[in-house]
This record gives sequence, structure tokens and C-alpha cells, in this order.
Amino acid sequence: MQAYEELKQLHLQLHNLRHFLALGGWDMQTMMPPKGATARANALAELEAHVRQLHTAPRVALLLKEALLVKDELAEVDRANLREMVRLHELASQLPEELLRRKARLTTLAQQLWVKCRAENDVAAWLPTLQELVDLEREEGRLRAGTSGKSPYDALLGANEPGMTVAKLDAIYADIKSWLPALYKEVLENQKDVDASLTELQTPISKEKQIALGRQLMTDVWRYDWGAGRYDEAPHPFGGMVKEDVRMTYYWSPDNYTKCLLATIHETGHAKYEQNCGPRELLGQPVCEARSGGIHETQSLLAERMIAKSAAFAEYLTPLLKLHLGAQPGLTVENVRKINQLVKPSYIRTLADEVGYSLHVILRYEIERDLIEGSLEAVDVPRVWNEKMKEYMGLETLGRDDLGCLQDIHWAAGYWAGFPAYTIGAIGAAQLMAAIRQQLGDDVVTQCIRTGHIDPILAKQKEMIWDLGCLLETDELLIKATGEPLNPRHLREHLERRYLRKED
Amino acid sequence: MQAYEELKQLHLQLHNLRHFLALGGWDMQTMMPPKGATARANALAELEAHVRQLHTAPRVALLLKEALLVKDELAEVDRANLREMVRLHELASQLPEELLRRKARLTTLAQQLWVKCRAENDVAAWLPTLQELVDLEREEGRLRAGTSGKSPYDALLGANEPGMTVAKLDAIYADIKSWLPALYKEVLENQKDVDASLTELQTPISKEKQIALGRQLMTDVWRYDWGAGRYDEAPHPFGGMVKEDVRMTYYWSPDNYTKCLLATIHETGHAKYEQNCGPRELLGQPVCEARSGGIHETQSLLAERMIAKSAAFAEYLTPLLKLHLGAQPGLTVENVRKINQLVKPSYIRTLADEVGYSLHVILRYEIERDLIEGSLEAVDVPRVWNEKMKEYMGLETLGRDDLGCLQDIHWAAGYWAGFPAYTIGAIGAAQLMAAIRQQLGDDVVTQCIRTGHIDPILAKQKEMIWDLGCLLETDELLIKATGEPLNPRHLREHLERRYLRKED
Repeated sequence: MQAYEELKQLHLQLHNLRHFLALGGWDMQTMMPPKGATARANALAELEAHVRQLHTAPRVALLLKEALLVKDELAEVDRANLREMVRLHELASQLPEELLRRKARLTTLAQQLWVKCRAENDVAAWLPTLQELVDLEREEGRLRAGTSGKSPYDALLGANEPGMTVAKLDAIYADIKSWLPALYKEVLENQKDVDASLTELQTPISKEKQIALGRQLMTDVWRYDWGAGRYDEAPHPFGGMVKEDVRMTYYWSPDNYTKCLLATIHETGHAKYEQNCGPRELLGQPVCEARSGGIHETQSLLAERMIAKSAAFAEYLTPLLKLHLGAQPGLTVENVRKINQLVKPSYIRTLADEVGYSLHVILRYEIERDLIEGSLEAVDVPRVWNEKMKEYMGLETLGRDDLGCLQDIHWAAGYWAGFPAYTIGAIGAAQLMAAIRQQLGDDVVTQCIRTGHIDPILAKQKEMIWDLGCLLETDELLIKATGEPLNPRHLREHLERRYLRKED
Repeated sequence: MQAYEELKQLHLQLHNLRHFLALGGWDMQTMMPPKGATARANALAELEAHVRQLHTAPRVALLLKEALLVKDELAEVDRANLREMVRLHELASQLPEELLRRKARLTTLAQQLWVKCRAENDVAAWLPTLQELVDLEREEGRLRAGTSGKSPYDALLGANEPGMTVAKLDAIYADIKSWLPALYKEVLENQKDVDASLTELQTPISKEKQIALGRQLMTDVWRYDWGAGRYDEAPHPFGGMVKEDVRMTYYWSPDNYTKCLLATIHETGHAKYEQNCGPRELLGQPVCEARSGGIHETQSLLAERMIAKSAAFAEYLTPLLKLHLGAQPGLTVENVRKINQLVKPSYIRTLADEVGYSLHVILRYEIERDLIEGSLEAVDVPRVWNEKMKEYMGLETLGRDDLGCLQDIHWAAGYWAGFPAYTIGAIGAAQLMAAIRQQLGDDVVTQCIRTGHIDPILAKQKEMIWDLGCLLETDELLIKATGEPLNPRHLREHLERRYLRKED
């Protein structure tokens, strides 16, 4: 007990210090003036080193051993907390500080170079640095794998998504690849006249109007807690900071209101999870944290795709759009639904429709897995990207790497094995929504969405996911909520229902 | 050398970690939603404890001893740096962590209570807590005095204003008290018709207009570096954060444009000092820090009082006001000067004119000195405040403690021996401006201010104060810049020149 109590104190301390890492990150993307960057980078590096030192001190390993000896005396929530403490300590101890510093330096440099190379469509200038990133990540993967017998990519994947493995993921993607390309073709064929038949909304739309619309949806529909958050402009929309103070951001473009709107709703989905996550009496403890990036994405995509893109939501949204943007020919329920559900091959993942989106993710997963496992080198990436893009989406990226392998920041930022979270989210959101529809009744759910009164859906999300924090492991969590582990069948059924049968 | 180099590393580390204390404080007053307060307080406490631990580790004292042994081998700037390292280490070591935590708890509670008591004009409910604060501060003073033979208040004063003592301050205040009350009466007599003769500006004035005016003055006149700062709303105007990223704030009222304007200019004076302070190659080292609160105030008051309130500045300001607020009868040069130079007894220090301001400060200094030295107790404060207010300003505060001893946050926040900085600033600003006028020529300075092209004045400030950081001790700094240590004669001459002879 004594050892466990001391570990809890340590985690409170880590929680309190990480508060500043999060604040420093949020501020950097929203408020910080350009000349503040060096001081911020130095400050973040200093505090990160201290946090790591505290977390990996030799005493911590001893305390964990002691606590494990008497874990059966602990309450269930504390046992789960201890399990997470062990997992996080292992992760923190796998990498030496030297590698972390090396990675921080390389990724800072790489991100600056990446911005330039993407802007100039200059993949040749990028590839040597990509190879350095790959080499470093292979090293990280080997260190994380240790003596476990895992492959480097498998180890990285498990670090990001506890419980997930390459074997599981390959099976999921094999399933998806067996039906998605055909489904995609069919939807494209069905929609071939939609683009011409829909009425674009009048542009430009002012920032003030887009933000007011976003704020109203966050408040009225998603019950975002403004006492514990903010909503500011950022170059890329994100939500986060700390769970006691979850800040949202928006990115807006005068010509594309859906991008700002759907990104806001997506981030609100994340924010609701954070604002309500875990047993609050254990605030600051690992068990009170979000389960994983993949589970996080189930919440954002449930908001964005299951609710906001549905036909029923167009009924709620259309009068609201009239209120904020003024009456105009495009503001009919049917036209708003068409805009939200338009399917059209896109070079850019973040602008892709939800049918094609998983193909973008599979492409990246396959490439990064093969890079880390060693069957691919950086120099192969433009070619392989183009081949897969042609195969999966019918699009060519040869000579336009800015629309191809240069489009994402992830690898430049040293974020590997992160793309699979988007698929876990896409499947999980559909799977959770199916369970919610079953439990509440299909008509009730549709009526909730049609009227914007989604409280019963939010209550189910709370019960199924938010309240549980890290009490359960991922598979257990999904089984408890939906009766089964992650199953791509639900994504297929959702897409067929919405895009082939037009029932959603 | 080795020891000194290690100390430099330590100070870089402290600088990097204090970055987050500063960011946490700035964010708390500008951005943080209310429910984020507890998490922020916990995070600040955790990081402060760590910073203190690093700074007072036993090894630091040993390193300082070693470095002092070979200090003659150091360059001048490094010797000054080492001198500041010793001073800061002494200050940090004087108080046990237990007292700091006790003070943090008490002042958090006290500030909440103070807000309530001031709003309800309930001094009786406030006095027991004030006594607790006094008791704690007596303890802090005794600990800081140690075996030095200093009195507790003297020790607190020296901690805030290196080199300043009660003896020096008493002499300065005796001087001021020998002429200011009579001067004040004479100015009031001279101005008795001004209030009726001046034309108030039309209100309300929108926030946007006030902010645009502030931004333009910061940019065009003071050359504020926007690449290294921001300008946001806060409940009380302040400037600060970290020297690499100096953020300004504004408070605005629709009915009082001068308050927002002059506060912005005042804070810009502080910000310019921070943005340019010390030898930058020693960034992060104590020698690169601002000299003291008092010297900081010389820079803010030079901007606010010496420049912005002068008759010459009214010539620059009037057309600018027309541009931002629209033409109106009050916008003549003479009327703008009258508004800026209006002298009128005020209960509230922060709203006081510059002639009476020092009397407000003397009152507080005398009361807090006597409280800490033990000749006064909290229960005496309302009575003594009223007596002094009547004597110095001819105003009664009996029964209106919200306009009296409840008006300032300083004591509630545990900030004692801080008021004298305002007098050091008032005298020092006049003294520096007299030196600048002598060096550049009176006509040149007036012409600079009249046209808003104050670059030659800023260059003098840079040379006299900013560049030097903590290279010199306070008296040396003032002697180097002006030929003499702090001399209240300059405040008197400034006030007589402006308010009796109407030459400024």
C-alpha cells in the first residue's frame, strides 16, 4: 500500500509538471509571437528532461515491484491504475534521454525543412532527412522491442495503441481492402451527378460568422463546458491542453465553411472525452487518462461522421446555417446533406470524404510499416506512394509530391505508427454508434440528431467510454460497450447504409 | 572557472523552468477559463518547489564559494553576474520551503477574501486575515534579516530593492514630505478652475478604438517589438512574462480612455526595458535581468509621465485622437493637455494624479513599515489610514475602507515592501529625463516628443539603463547615468516645471 501511495504521489507530480508542457504547446500554436520560439523550445526541453528523470528514477522501478506484490489488496480502480503505471514506466524507460534529445533536435530541423520542401514540391531535398528520421525510428523501435521478440514497428504501434499489434492490424486492413475499393467505386458511380447538382454556398464567409456557428454547435448540441475551455485560432485545428482546461482551436477559410465546421465538431468530440474522462477522484493518475489515440478518434469521429454528416443532422443544421449565413439558394436540407456527404477522390487526406479516407490511411500504414521493418527505404517512398495512390484511389502523384508523400507532418514530427489510430477511430465510431442505436432505438437516435438534442447519445458515450478512462484495456472496453472487439464490419455497414442505401 | 561555468548552467536551467511559471501567470490573467484555476495552482506550486530545490541545493553554495575564490580571473560582466548569483542564492536560501507553502496557501485564501471584503466594504471581516499576513511577514522579515542586524522591514525592502534601506528611504520621504504637501496645495489652487474649463471627450469609446490607439502608439512611438510580444485584455493592465516574449495587456473602460491609454504607455515603458534588457549574450543569467522593481518603474514612468503627460505630447496625440475617435470639441491640443495634467485629490492610488501620487505611496510605506516593525497592528490600519489620508490629501476614509485601506491587492497577495518602488520610479524617471534633456538638449527632447519621433530618447534609455541589466548596483547605475544617486530634487523640479510654471 505504502509503495502504491508513493507512486500515486509521483504521478500527481508528473501530472502537475506536464500541465506546463501542455500549456507551452497550446500557447506555441495559438498565442506565441515568432521570436518566442527559441525560449519556448529550451524551456520545453528542460522540463521534459526533468519529467523523464522523475519518471525513470531507479526508486520508481522498486516501488512498482513492491506494489505489484500486494496488488490483490487494491480496489479494482487502483489495480487498473497500477497496471497503467507499469505500462507507462516501461515506455518511459525504454528510451535513453540521449535518443530523446537527438529526436527532438532532428524533428525540429525536419519540420522546418518539410514546410519548405512541401511548399516547393521538392521531394529530393526532403528524402535524406526522411531517411534520417526512418533510421532513428528503426532504432527507437528496436529499443522499444527489447527482448520481447516484437518487430520494431510492432513495438512502436504497441507504444501508441496499447494492445494493438501488426498482426491484428494487417487482418483489419485485409478485411477493409477486400470490400472498400469496390464500395468506393460504387459510391463514386452513384454520386457522379451529385457534384453538378449541388449548389455551393455563397463565399466568402467571414471568420466571425464561422466562429459564431461553431460556438453555437459546441454549446447547444455538444454541451461543451466553457468554464473549462476556450476556442482560439490556430494554423491547424486541434483540441487539448489538459483535461481540467480543454482548449479548442479553429482554422478557417473564407471559401470553405464545411472545413471549419466539421473540424470544430471533430475537435469537440475529442474535447468532450477529455472534459469527462475517467474517475475524477483519481485526477492526475494514469487511470483517469484517455485510453489511446485510437479510442480518442472514436469520439471525434462519432461526433463528426456519425452525427454531423448524417442526413438527420442536415435538418437541424440548415435553419442554423440560415441564421448565421443568411438565406441563400444552397440552404435547403437536401443540399446541405449533399455537401456534407459528397464523395470525391482527393489527393489530400485531411480533405478526403469518409469513404475514401481509410484508403489514405492504409496507404500510409503500409508504407511506414515497411520503412521501419526495413523492406523500404526513404528513396522508394515517392514511387510506392504513387503506385498505391493509383491502385487505391485512381489518382497519380508522380511529380506532385506536395499532393503526395509530402502532405502530412507526422513523419517530419517524428510521429510514427500514429496513422492506424484513424482507422481504429473510423471503425470504432461506427461500432459504438451501432451499439447506441441498438440500446436507445434507431428512431430515438435519429430524432436526437434531427433536433440537435443529443443528450441521450452523449450520456451513452459517457457510460460506454468517458467514465471508464483507462479502467479497462482497449479490447475489454469495446467488448463491454458493444459486445465485441474492434470489427470492421461496422464501418462497412455504416458506409453502405449512408452511401448506398441513403438511410443515414 | 569550472565552478562558475556550472553555476551558469544552473541559471540557464532556472531561466528555462521559470519560463513556465511566467507563462502560467500570464495565461491565468488573460486566457485561463475559471475551472482551470485549481490545476494551475497545483502546477505552479509543483514547479516552484522544484525551482527552489535546484536553486538551494547544497552543491550551489559550494560552487559559489569556489567561484568567489577565483573571481578576479573573471571578466567584468561575469563578476557582476557572479555577484547577482550570490545575492539571489542568499535570498532563495533565507526562507524554508515550509514558509513558502504556508504563504502561498494564506495569500490564495487572503486574495479571495479581500475581493469580497472590498466589494462589501467590510473591513472587520478582513482584519483578522490581515493580521495573519502581517505575522507571517514579520517572520519572513526576521528570517531574511538573519544575523545581519537589519530590522525585519529593512530586510524585506533590501530583498525587493537591492541596496535600498529604511534609513535611505526615510530620508527620501522626509525630503518629499517637506515640500510636496505645500506644492500639492498650490497646484490644486492653480487648477481650481481647470476641471470646469475642460471639455470631456465623448463617451462611450469602443474597445476596438482604444486598442487600435494603444497599438499605434506602441508601434509608431515606442517601437514595441511585436515579433516578441502580444497585447491582450486582462482585469488589471500588466506587462511581462519573459524577456524573450514580453506580453502587454490592457484594461479598458468605455468612459475613461485616458486610463487605458496611459496604462498602455506605462506598461510599454516596462516592456521596452524587458525587451532590451542586459547583455543578450548572457541571456538567462542574472546579469541580464532587470535591475529592480524601482528601476523598472523609472522606465514605465518615464514613458507615462515624462513623455505622455507632457504638453509637447498633447501636440502629437491630439491629431491621433481625432483619427481614432473622430473630430469632437474636446480634441484641441490645449484641452488634451488639460485632461492629461488634471490634478485632483483621489481616494484611489491607481487613479491619482502624479503630484498627489507620492503621498499615496508614503502613506502605505509608513503603515506597512510600522506593521512589520511591530509598532502597529492590523486593527490599527483603518484608523491610521484615515488619519494620514486626511493629513496628506485632505480626504476622509472613515467608514469607506473600500476607498481606503482595502483598495490595494499588495498585502493580500503577500507583496510587502513593494510600494517604495513607485517612489524610486517617480524620482528616477524625473532624474533620468533631466539627464537626457541635458545630454540631448532641451529643444531636441521637446521636438522629439512633439513629433512622436522619440528614437533619440529611447537610444539614451538603452545606453543609460537597458543595456546595463544588472551589471551595476542601483546607486552606481544612477550615478553613471545621471551623475548622482537617487535625488528627490528632480521630482520636485519636474512637478514645479509642469504644474507651477507650465513649461512641460
